[in-house]
Amino acid sequence: MAQKPSIPKGTRDFNAVEVAKRSYIMNIIKEQFELYGFQPIETPSFENSDTLMGKYGDEGDRLIFKILNSGDFLEKFNKSLLEVIKDSLYNLLGFLKVENLDWKIFKARFLEFIPNHIRTEKSIQFVEENVNFEKLALDLWSLIELNFLTTEEKQTDFLSRGESGLSDFTMRVFASFYANFGTSYLGSNISEKALRYDLTVPFARYVVQHQNEIEFPFKRYQIQPVWRADRPQKGRFREFYQCDADVVGSTSLFQEVEFIQLYDAVFTALDLKGVTIKINNRKILSGIAEVIGAQDKLIDFTVALDKLDKIGEEKVKEEMRGKGISEDGIFKLQPLFSLEGDFGTQVESLKSILNTSEVGLKGIEELEFIDASISKLGLKTANLQLDVTLARGLNYYTGAIFEVAAPEGVKMGSIGGGGRYDDLTSIFGKPDTSGVGISFGLDRIYLVLEELNLFPETITDATKVLFINFGEKEAMACLQAVTNLRQHGVKAELYPDSAKMKKQMTHANRRNIPYVVLVGEEELNSGTYTLKNMKTGEQEKLNIQELLSTLK
Amino acid sequence: MAQKPSIPKGTRDFNAVEVAKRSYIMNIIKEQFELYGFQPIETPSFENSDTLMGKYGDEGDRLIFKILNSGDFLEKFNKSLLEVIKDSLYNLLGFLKVENLDWKIFKARFLEFIPNHIRTEKSIQFVEENVNFEKLALDLWSLIELNFLTTEEKQTDFLSRGESGLSDFTMRVFASFYANFGTSYLGSNISEKALRYDLTVPFARYVVQHQNEIEFPFKRYQIQPVWRADRPQKGRFREFYQCDADVVGSTSLFQEVEFIQLYDAVFTALDLKGVTIKINNRKILSGIAEVIGAQDKLIDFTVALDKLDKIGEEKVKEEMRGKGISEDGIFKLQPLFSLEGDFGTQVESLKSILNTSEVGLKGIEELEFIDASISKLGLKTANLQLDVTLARGLNYYTGAIFEVAAPEGVKMGSIGGGGRYDDLTSIFGKPDTSGVGISFGLDRIYLVLEELNLFPETITDATKVLFINFGEKEAMACLQAVTNLRQHGVKAELYPDSAKMKKQMTHANRRNIPYVVLVGEEELNSGTYTLKNMKTGEQEKLNIQELLSTLK
Repeated sequence: MAQKPSIPKGTRDFNAVEVAKRSYIMNIIKEQFELYGFQPIETPSFENSDTLMGKYGDEGDRLIFKILNSGDFLEKFNKSLLEVIKDSLYNLLGFLKVENLDWKIFKARFLEFIPNHIRTEKSIQFVEENVNFEKLALDLWSLIELNFLTTEEKQTDFLSRGESGLSDFTMRVFASFYANFGTSYLGSNISEKALRYDLTVPFARYVVQHQNEIEFPFKRYQIQPVWRADRPQKGRFREFYQCDADVVGSTSLFQEVEFIQLYDAVFTALDLKGVTIKINNRKILSGIAEVIGAQDKLIDFTVALDKLDKIGEEKVKEEMRGKGISEDGIFKLQPLFSLEGDFGTQVESLKSILNTSEVGLKGIEELEFIDASISKLGLKTANLQLDVTLARGLNYYTGAIFEVAAPEGVKMGSIGGGGRYDDLTSIFGKPDTSGVGISFGLDRIYLVLEELNLFPETITDATKVLFINFGEKEAMACLQAVTNLRQHGVKAELYPDSAKMKKQMTHANRRNIPYVVLVGEEELNSGTYTLKNMKTGEQEKLNIQELLSTLK
Repeated sequence: MAQKPSIPKGTRDFNAVEVAKRSYIMNIIKEQFELYGFQPIETPSFENSDTLMGKYGDEGDRLIFKILNSGDFLEKFNKSLLEVIKDSLYNLLGFLKVENLDWKIFKARFLEFIPNHIRTEKSIQFVEENVNFEKLALDLWSLIELNFLTTEEKQTDFLSRGESGLSDFTMRVFASFYANFGTSYLGSNISEKALRYDLTVPFARYVVQHQNEIEFPFKRYQIQPVWRADRPQKGRFREFYQCDADVVGSTSLFQEVEFIQLYDAVFTALDLKGVTIKINNRKILSGIAEVIGAQDKLIDFTVALDKLDKIGEEKVKEEMRGKGISEDGIFKLQPLFSLEGDFGTQVESLKSILNTSEVGLKGIEELEFIDASISKLGLKTANLQLDVTLARGLNYYTGAIFEVAAPEGVKMGSIGGGGRYDDLTSIFGKPDTSGVGISFGLDRIYLVLEELNLFPETITDATKVLFINFGEKEAMACLQAVTNLRQHGVKAELYPDSAKMKKQMTHANRRNIPYVVLVGEEELNSGTYTLKNMKTGEQEKLNIQELLSTLK
């Protein structure tokens, strides 16, 4: 390999400093998760495809990384392909001999001839929906014209070419058919596993699979990488860590209260003061939709309202009208446009809108409970804020919705989010298991801490002392001291080769090692160690005990 | 999904206790790695295929998990397949019209007709080597006989069937050709990424890619999962962690000495006393092969010698003779059959064999340096043992070879291994960079610690105290105390629902939570907390300060 090696786009190498900083964040999150009673679990990097597929919508399915079956993954496929070829051709040959090429009949017969061993309702439906037969036939005709017909032949009726012409034709039909149909057929035959797309679906799978071993309510946390075949861009990667904490098996609103406390605790521990924890409730959004008679326009409505700060009341209303929300509805929403003041004041405005909606009032009741609890318990450094435009994961959350914004002045998308979902595990056959959870955005938190210079300097402290190597005898004496230091918890190293002194000192400097020890003839004879402070340049001669106590 | 969800074979879910135990091992390894001056790096889970493929031999390539190209991964393939169909058929049709079916000519023409856009030296070679043309032709003939010929036709010469018969035939040829050739063609078109197979090759790639940012000698450690499509069996998984430490950029034997110390330090810290660190040197094996004139029989020789304990001297010699090692050679090896005593004694025997081999004597010199150094430095709990039969990764290591065996009495394969490799990074275009490294077998170490009951009890300590929930008012008071406790580092929880007392107590017991706190009407009024020890059953009424100091 001559060219410089590289890594796949959207992935990253992390050097020692980056690993240390990432670990610092993850360890603080872990510590708080455990203080709050969450237990760690880990799931495999890849799951069976049917565990993941269909759980994230079409867009999600497309972004899931699929793994090729191991071994000779095509052997199975090729064997069945040969069978398919045989069956289809034999049938088609028979068909083409006796019928005229009426495309409707062609299509009907084509469906009829789907080989038995792949003939399922699904495959028939797939062919019906995905194969454009007229286009296929026309394309084939062009191909045949281009490749198989002489100028003279092009003047004559294709169907009159006899068996040979028909046979060529069927071959084309077949090839094109499998070029179209093959995508789905091949797809499910060569890949049965996929890299996890998030931690939530694997968690749901875990809960259902291990339900008999789990003591509910089950509080788990999970910090592992996930993979998405998204178009990579600044701050968006194809491999990244998620840090999730969830509780399943209880509908208590105390969970929501505790999650807000947990966010506050983590960001306080990270010294990231002044984050805003935004909260909303799906029930309030449902209530608003109910009140304005537009249950299907929830997203349009929240997207428009979200722009209030930027484009002003009139333009928001204009957008709502454009999306088909009625004048009457917009009139009812009037109090939303002037939502101001503290949590309580905003809730009062909401009540005036939602007083006819049972579900809306339920949402308000939940918000009020959470706000009252948090007021009583207090937050260390975070702010709790009601945000009626918050609608993340709308199809997913059923109660509380959370999102965390970085402190004012830091330009960054949300650094955390979560909510309550009432029916997560039912996709795996365990209904009626309410869950609520939050997630921390590791990469973004990293960027915020970097921007605000909040990483403690000590976390990147690596080796504390480098012993300079003046030759085998001296090096051996050094290694004895190094061994001693390590046993007392001091990160110590011996430069492995007796290179030039300058080279070794430069090595220490480049690696920011704060001390070096010099052991030459004299030190060797007197059993001492010359310790040099690389910043001040100061040197002192110490015995092993003094060396230890200085460096410890 | 009706059936119970599951995970792919060879993968594992880890529950909280398992995660805690695995983290315990990994943290101790990490801590020692850092004391020894190794810095952490992390590389992406998947690499470009060409980074990994061809680096582990054919067997390795087969065991690498490949990732399907994202998006419509088949679109590209299908488009070129159609082109291929067109070209091949057109050419084959022309060919079959004018030639007799002589299989040698058939083969030559077939190769000739590989379509231009996939026509490379490699693809021609692939077809030549992998397509059995005679078998292919005979199979096709059977297919045709079976499906397309009437009884009467079977009596007649196939070639006289005219264009129609030939056309059917070419179709078959085509299908079979792509069923064979397609495997490799498809493979490289639909997958360009693969999950890493070990940490060594990605490390080599990292060193070359980042060589300008790296300060050499570079000591790095890496603890990350790897994936292998191996047949799963007891103790062998498709996803498992590797824990590697390597130094590149120095040939100093002090590295080998330090790695032995590092093994000793880690296993001592894990309280796993009495492991045996086996050491050998590739140069000694090369020397022996040189002496007995059988450079190509290194593996046969070591495999046979390795059985000495089990089958005895005579049978070992028999096996060597069977493998073609000469009587003269075996005679020269005589001292190996009675290798006994300590390191020094064994080395003397080796010297008597290898006194004519320069490389062999170099190997002995290296061993002696390492042994002398370790004798001077001392090991805490491990034993260092010379093992001339040790030959792991023979094609890979160029100097020292290490392997660690569990303490006597524990049946378990090696729990660690490593060695020196002089030319790892040259595969990525950076030659002359010597490296040496070791690896810890996390899963096996886990099993050994489990068997010997060496996991400290405290590592699985989760929540320390559960506050029983008697209703909203009481729960709120509890949550205030819980918050206070957490802020003082006590893992505390509130049972989220005001369920029956018995249910809540059972929950505490099932989760091995050692204390519960009861706050009812009385406690609420007096501002006290009734703390119950779940083991002894003792109860005491405490104020918040007393509660804190008891649980801290």
